[in-house]
Amino acid sequence: MLRYLTAGESHGSALTAILEGLPPNIEIRQEDFDNLLKKRLAGYGRGNRTKIESDKVEVLSGIVNGKTIGSPISIIIRNSDFENHKDYMAPFGAANVDIGRIDIPLPGHADLAGMIKYGFDNCRYVRERASARETAIRTAISVPARCFLKSKGISSLCMVESIGELKANINFDSSEEDLKRLLISNGDDFLTPDSDIIPKWKSLIDECKKQNQSLGGSGVVIFYNLPIGLGSYVEYDKRLDGKIAAAVMSIPAIKGVEIGNATELSKNRNNLVDKINYNKDKGFSRQSNYAGGLEGGMTNGQPLFVRFYMKPLPSNSKVESIDLITKKIAYPKYYRSDVQAVTSAAVVVESVIALEIASEMT
Amino acid sequence: MLRYLTAGESHGSALTAILEGLPPNIEIRQEDFDNLLKKRLAGYGRGNRTKIESDKVEVLSGIVNGKTIGSPISIIIRNSDFENHKDYMAPFGAANVDIGRIDIPLPGHADLAGMIKYGFDNCRYVRERASARETAIRTAISVPARCFLKSKGISSLCMVESIGELKANINFDSSEEDLKRLLISNGDDFLTPDSDIIPKWKSLIDECKKQNQSLGGSGVVIFYNLPIGLGSYVEYDKRLDGKIAAAVMSIPAIKGVEIGNATELSKNRNNLVDKINYNKDKGFSRQSNYAGGLEGGMTNGQPLFVRFYMKPLPSNSKVESIDLITKKIAYPKYYRSDVQAVTSAAVVVESVIALEIASEMT
Amino acid sequence: MLRYLTAGESHGSALTAILEGLPPNIEIRQEDFDNLLKKRLAGYGRGNRTKIESDKVEVLSGIVNGKTIGSPISIIIRNSDFENHKDYMAPFGAANVDIGRIDIPLPGHADLAGMIKYGFDNCRYVRERASARETAIRTAISVPARCFLKSKGISSLCMVESIGELKANINFDSSEEDLKRLLISNGDDFLTPDSDIIPKWKSLIDECKKQNQSLGGSGVVIFYNLPIGLGSYVEYDKRLDGKIAAAVMSIPAIKGVEIGNATELSKNRNNLVDKINYNKDKGFSRQSNYAGGLEGGMTNGQPLFVRFYMKPLPSNSKVESIDLITKKIAYPKYYRSDVQAVTSAAVVVESVIALEIASEMT
Amino acid sequence: MLRYLTAGESHGSALTAILEGLPPNIEIRQEDFDNLLKKRLAGYGRGNRTKIESDKVEVLSGIVNGKTIGSPISIIIRNSDFENHKDYMAPFGAANVDIGRIDIPLPGHADLAGMIKYGFDNCRYVRERASARETAIRTAISVPARCFLKSKGISSLCMVESIGELKANINFDSSEEDLKRLLISNGDDFLTPDSDIIPKWKSLIDECKKQNQSLGGSGVVIFYNLPIGLGSYVEYDKRLDGKIAAAVMSIPAIKGVEIGNATELSKNRNNLVDKINYNKDKGFSRQSNYAGGLEGGMTNGQPLFVRFYMKPLPSNSKVESIDLITKKIAYPKYYRSDVQAVTSAAVVVESVIALEIASEMT
Repeated sequence: MLRYLTAGESHGSALTAILEGLPPNIEIRQEDFDNLLKKRLAGYGRGNRTKIESDKVEVLSGIVNGKTIGSPISIIIRNSDFENHKDYMAPFGAANVDIGRIDIPLPGHADLAGMIKYGFDNCRYVRERASARETAIRTAISVPARCFLKSKGISSLCMVESIGELKANINFDSSEEDLKRLLISNGDDFLTPDSDIIPKWKSLIDECKKQNQSLGGSGVVIFYNLPIGLGSYVEYDKRLDGKIAAAVMSIPAIKGVEIGNATELSKNRNNLVDKINYNKDKGFSRQSNYAGGLEGGMTNGQPLFVRFYMKPLPSNSKVESIDLITKKIAYPKYYRSDVQAVTSAAVVVESVIALEIASEMT
Repeated sequence: MLRYLTAGESHGSALTAILEGLPPNIEIRQEDFDNLLKKRLAGYGRGNRTKIESDKVEVLSGIVNGKTIGSPISIIIRNSDFENHKDYMAPFGAANVDIGRIDIPLPGHADLAGMIKYGFDNCRYVRERASARETAIRTAISVPARCFLKSKGISSLCMVESIGELKANINFDSSEEDLKRLLISNGDDFLTPDSDIIPKWKSLIDECKKQNQSLGGSGVVIFYNLPIGLGSYVEYDKRLDGKIAAAVMSIPAIKGVEIGNATELSKNRNNLVDKINYNKDKGFSRQSNYAGGLEGGMTNGQPLFVRFYMKPLPSNSKVESIDLITKKIAYPKYYRSDVQAVTSAAVVVESVIALEIASEMT
Repeated sequence: MLRYLTAGESHGSALTAILEGLPPNIEIRQEDFDNLLKKRLAGYGRGNRTKIESDKVEVLSGIVNGKTIGSPISIIIRNSDFENHKDYMAPFGAANVDIGRIDIPLPGHADLAGMIKYGFDNCRYVRERASARETAIRTAISVPARCFLKSKGISSLCMVESIGELKANINFDSSEEDLKRLLISNGDDFLTPDSDIIPKWKSLIDECKKQNQSLGGSGVVIFYNLPIGLGSYVEYDKRLDGKIAAAVMSIPAIKGVEIGNATELSKNRNNLVDKINYNKDKGFSRQSNYAGGLEGGMTNGQPLFVRFYMKPLPSNSKVESIDLITKKIAYPKYYRSDVQAVTSAAVVVESVIALEIASEMT
Repeated sequence: MLRYLTAGESHGSALTAILEGLPPNIEIRQEDFDNLLKKRLAGYGRGNRTKIESDKVEVLSGIVNGKTIGSPISIIIRNSDFENHKDYMAPFGAANVDIGRIDIPLPGHADLAGMIKYGFDNCRYVRERASARETAIRTAISVPARCFLKSKGISSLCMVESIGELKANINFDSSEEDLKRLLISNGDDFLTPDSDIIPKWKSLIDECKKQNQSLGGSGVVIFYNLPIGLGSYVEYDKRLDGKIAAAVMSIPAIKGVEIGNATELSKNRNNLVDKINYNKDKGFSRQSNYAGGLEGGMTNGQPLFVRFYMKPLPSNSKVESIDLITKKIAYPKYYRSDVQAVTSAAVVVESVIALEIASEMT
């Protein structure tokens, strides 16, 4: 079983994470961290912050000479921009915390609820930690888990299926190799196997950018070659679908998750199940994957298929709110310019699922 | 924080549960258990098993004279039919376990994966525990949590939104009172506020029954009057949306979950967020509920709105499988006759969310 | 990893427990429960309650035909005496809860602190659950864990080392076989390998009984044939010594625990460690067991040696207290007549350690 | 509830920790970290390593301008000596890991068991993480918990009671103020209220140093002004004595723990309990503290009194072992020169208990 905690504020000095529970001798390279974080920062329509985020991981413990040693892995991503924020974010002796005040809560964010929960008089500290910036370190700490899965022959893909109302045309009966090839050739800006949708998404994003609008979307993550029997039916909280759903839904802006084609299946009356085959050499196999790789809360040998639904980021347009001091109608400051972050979300979803699966296998 | 464990096999002597963490002095009545379990067993198109399941809860501890006493609550539901199964299910001295063998795994169930995971040579013990029968005790153990929520002024509704391809017409802008009134007047057979859909669902279910088909569907659960700030953004696994998603997805046959109108929001580009109002007397409020009551992983004062998607039960039609002994194509025995169980699922979803919310509040 | 919860009040209808996490196919017999509970009830100087406690375990789930099936194991011990207490302990419709009031808290028990913590106006509900009666079900639920350990070739002993100021003369360099033989020949009344101490303990207990005094003591539990490497040093809460200490200290009246001869070692300056031998056939071994079988929070292949210290039961003599209603000095009602329960404690300590070790191995 | 994880190797680049669960607005100063770590490093008879360990804490998150903000607190202690070890400890591209090999396991350490558990071919990585160096970061991460307790009016003391066979003469009936005054006047080298014992301990340590021997000892930690009812009797693992025992026993070299005068009480037959007083203004109080502040697994309003027993460090003398390569008798390299670390242990014990108590209160 793995455990991990993350820490760090969006404009604080650093993000950190500790991951505990992986066995020794898993091979990991510095570039495994670098490449994944670069992928997370890519995405057409992402804002300027992504250029500030250089996101260089420093490994502090748990890995020696490119291999895990069984001890907790700790990592740090320094915020290269901290100098510009330390007057109100320094742990001790901040010059002027008041310049960091956020007096107009942003609807759709944690701002108002968080402020009330913790008794703050402005939204700064909520905004700092509730920010999706936290997913950078969560993505980074998935790297050792991903390398563990790789060492077991498990691979995975993440992709964007829709941005706004425009849905890509993806053939999910394609082989892993075909999907991988298409994803690579189409690049990290859109993370989709459907090259035809790309110009349409581009136009849509450009248009929304002009109008200060943002876009949601959906994506799919697939894990291949999982052993049969991860998770269990014996107790409700050991079911792997529950654990995966929790991990995916804990990502900011993700509001829906399904295993297999859940919404489609729910409308069907043909009782679609995955017929069982048997072959003397290969043992049992399935003829289809309606169940998305999970039956009875366990992996069944088919690819694990997870879809997520993301709401538009609540940040670009002018949205009516209330000034906490004057109690009058006011508009939150423009603070972020991502038109879409579905590409980024797809990477994060793959990351948190990798952590869950590795957790089941350790 | 609440903890609970459930135990029991579908044809074993009893189901039990222990729930730990509730404060003393919560009022509970025997009929609170009886009524809820009756509601779970209702549903047009449910099979004969529901008539066998009398589901009488006996409270063994933790409640004295109709009030909790702070100690763990334990309950038992005896299986009135155990006599007919004890030859192969008795804990000690079973007369003939072989008569209980299930040699043809049912695709769509835990059968095959569970058997492989645990090294069984047939599917009996998997079927016994992976059965949705377990949700009877999980529903029952939600009763003390529900009574706790009630004592805090929190109420809830559960309803069916679609069965198969037929979707009810529900006005979610209706007040709690209006929804409740419609639900009561339409009865527990369909658990829906839309009386017009009922005859259509009836026909559909009747038709599927004749054809030995089963139906999935979707449903909605709403909690009202939650305090602001349940859950937290500070660590990924404290976000309430993740916890709720885990609980809902741990229910057999549920394959999708969303908070608010996630799939709709994901397509939207109008940046729909819930504008903030302020009133000197009532404080902050919202103009809408696109977020489904959760922002930043916390309750925001609006009703919590959760939708679930359920696949058709994999049990009524003939489905190709493999005989574990002969390794030849074979067809699982007909074993259950529910055409739909979406009504039942709605009750269970409401139950597990009640447990999660109560857990946040204790 | 194992999880278990227990439930039940001392004078309620039943004690129950659920244990989750054991693999299938562990052999268990009904008499394994019966024999262990009988041993827990034995002990010279125990009171009349032990005659009321028939302590018959009924297995409700998780075991079929004498073998575990991987599902949660649930058990129940009905309180045969419940009829005499249900007027104030019935879950619903208790005839007269007031006759159960305990208005004079017993110092040394949970009474006063528990009452204040939970806001009760008398001590009944605290007394009911804080009672060492709970250890009956904890002992019972250790049986499947013990059977699991047995299936792995692991065995254990529990014994009393001292009662009051009288310490047995035990040669801990004796083999497991020799200790076992002595323990069996000396019987369950004193659970000690030293037959010479028995008449002295008898006199001491008899004398204390006359004077309405009670006695504490100490005992030792040893586990043999543990694999090397249970527990871990990688994170503080994975150290097995910590887990064992927690389990042992969670038993009522036990106030001290040590691994190996901790108090003796702490005084030593000869740097006593367990020298390492190597033999081509048998691999590494140790020349001694000063560490009590644990180094760096892990088993090291030597027997696990745990000593516990128990305070006298706070129940037999007149102890000054306060009447909750009059707020005047008063004396708690005599309610129990155990002069010593060190024998019983030794069985319980062995039980909770068995659960911890099995948890490490699953 | 608090959660924390620590990470870091003894000769790695840094130690880190993340602590999650504290409320906002707790006041913390940089010097709170500095002073506590300095105290942990003090102690007469400690070795040269303590001079290398400058132990400067950098706060990375969770604290802004001297106050907690509710978010996870993360800290880092850089190892100033890392340059000298990076050839075999660097996370990537270590120049020569072989120069770090430890081929002769040190008995009394985790070396051999850890190596076998994790499948290493030498003891380096076990030694790195199992080292008591880890307690530096655990001590540091207790600082926010200590500040939280301070904000609630809770204070604490830690002291050494015995070193080797020499026991200090401490009057535990002294007031907190008196004990504190004596501790301060006697200094951090011995952390004891008994000034008369100091010259004797000094001689003993000096003598042992010459003979390359090391010393164990015992110590006491007391917490004052705890609210009544922390912990609970309702479930075995909620008892505070168990949690405290686990925390204390998870510290390297600590092999015994007791609450109150457990070993003394166990020999007593006078049924010593803490009589209850009542005073109209002050409510309930106790006449004594035999129970060490815990009854029924809960705080009872009296000071919490915890004693620990530490074995001698297994490191100074020549101890017979086996060379892993030649399989012949060999002697571990001299690697550390602490004659005693009981002073340090006392600080760490106080730290982990502070974390447990704060966890109960959040």
